[in-house]
Amino acid sequence: MAIIECVPNVSEGRRADVVETLVSAIRSVPGVRVLDSSSDPSHNRSVLTLAGEAGPLQAAILALFEKALAVIDLRTHTGEHPRLGAVDVVPFVPIEGVTMAECVTLAREIGRAVAERFGVPVYLYEEAATNPARRNLEDIRRGEFEGLAEKMRKPDWAPDFGPPAPHASAGATVIGARMPLIAYNINLATDRLDVAKRIAAAIRHSSGGFRFVKAMGIALEDRGIVQVSMNLTNFEKTPIFRVFEVVRREAASYGVNVLESEIVGLVPAAALVGTAEYFLQLSAFKPEQVLEARLRHAE
Amino acid sequence: MAIIECVPNVSEGRRADVVETLVSAIRSVPGVRVLDSSSDPSHNRSVLTLAGEAGPLQAAILALFEKALAVIDLRTHTGEHPRLGAVDVVPFVPIEGVTMAECVTLAREIGRAVAERFGVPVYLYEEAATNPARRNLEDIRRGEFEGLAEKMRKPDWAPDFGPPAPHASAGATVIGARMPLIAYNINLATDRLDVAKRIAAAIRHSSGGFRFVKAMGIALEDRGIVQVSMNLTNFEKTPIFRVFEVVRREAASYGVNVLESEIVGLVPAAALVGTAEYFLQLSAFKPEQVLEARLRHAE
Repeated sequence: MAIIECVPNVSEGRRADVVETLVSAIRSVPGVRVLDSSSDPSHNRSVLTLAGEAGPLQAAILALFEKALAVIDLRTHTGEHPRLGAVDVVPFVPIEGVTMAECVTLAREIGRAVAERFGVPVYLYEEAATNPARRNLEDIRRGEFEGLAEKMRKPDWAPDFGPPAPHASAGATVIGARMPLIAYNINLATDRLDVAKRIAAAIRHSSGGFRFVKAMGIALEDRGIVQVSMNLTNFEKTPIFRVFEVVRREAASYGVNVLESEIVGLVPAAALVGTAEYFLQLSAFKPEQVLEARLRHAE
Repeated sequence: MAIIECVPNVSEGRRADVVETLVSAIRSVPGVRVLDSSSDPSHNRSVLTLAGEAGPLQAAILALFEKALAVIDLRTHTGEHPRLGAVDVVPFVPIEGVTMAECVTLAREIGRAVAERFGVPVYLYEEAATNPARRNLEDIRRGEFEGLAEKMRKPDWAPDFGPPAPHASAGATVIGARMPLIAYNINLATDRLDVAKRIAAAIRHSSGGFRFVKAMGIALEDRGIVQVSMNLTNFEKTPIFRVFEVVRREAASYGVNVLESEIVGLVPAAALVGTAEYFLQLSAFKPEQVLEARLRHAE
């Protein structure tokens, strides 16, 4: 049995009944489970977390679009978070028994189906991108819904699927495949914000650090401490334990201790199992030795 | 959904077709999964690992007894491993969504059913034991099948269920509930067997160490190194990371490094997640944050 995670971001985070309608449309598809739904009113955006196999997920995403197009109109949508479409972003994430290549294929199939059925232009991003300029979501989304008609007139921004102009009320959609993202923070036993900022600069990709780390240093003012706040975008290639150990060592060079760390939201079991393997120096450990993994695969 | 593990040990490890018959009898019960089956010819014993909820497991164990009694006769059984019965030991192990108390209740219900249906005397052990002298399997099994008739004539050894004398061909059975057992070894970068033996003595319960550790020091002669070989019998109360750190520190006091460690067979995910929590100093981590756990519980 394959497990694919799918995390559609929709441009509605204020009307709870509307979000519930969208979630219900997904739940009505057999074989798809809704693991989480969280709405942010100031962003006016909801993030849904689904899991299932390819076929059920495709049906669920089409059901989501059908409902979302009926109830969300970007022409009257406001919110702090950048967005391009009613269903703004749809990433597929390989979790178990499925390859990234299979998730890329699925993203492209669903992108084509969405464009054909609903007339919404679709851009493919991250691992599913068809050219390097479209890998980063931020680049595709720059200009947002309000600038989309003008942006799409440039030949570089012809969509991967669908019409060469925005859908009137639903804009465009970005669909793709990526690794699971881990929101990971390390709290330092100090109030020195400069230390957190310097460590963040040392470990993030953009300033010379690890390839799959985004990081910033922030103050947790109510607690009188600082935090290195991170997104780990590929825990297989830049694992959580290596990031922790480097942050710990960097902090020590300022005479600062790690107070604690925290994982926000969901984390794949493999990231924690890999951490245990590292610190226990486990040799020849196989994922099938985890009892619950065996359970999922036993007949 | 509750997950209970059950690990019946049967006194047949040489006739593969007979073992397959027993496994088939279990597989025929809906809702029970066979995670593993391993046979040892010199022990003449097989260890089956099943998982399921209480009802299906009860049906599976009764099906196992029915078949085992037809094909195993202890009067002609030989093997290195101590044994009391055709189905020798049946422990139930809480894994997820189920308490130890519920596993104790299940063990007692099944013990009663086995005794009534098959006329096999049943002893309850470990957490299901009805008196302290029966907690340890070794104490119940002492004297083995060959000494059982005489042992059962002592009032102290009246069974918990069933007739006051052995079943002619199937002896008696020990049924109970226990925590998952983790077979865990730490290899040291030295050939000094005395170091492994001293560390084993320092950490095992019987000589002053941790409550839920059994340990011995052995030589891995083909590799020219030594090993602290352990069973961790309650990973919640004596966790794997604490044992690792103490062994590492003890080894350092002899000028010896830990080369690697290894987990033999299955390990509950919670033991590895707990290890990651410890080393990463994770605060406020909840088991439901593990994506796969969420998957098992989502509607």
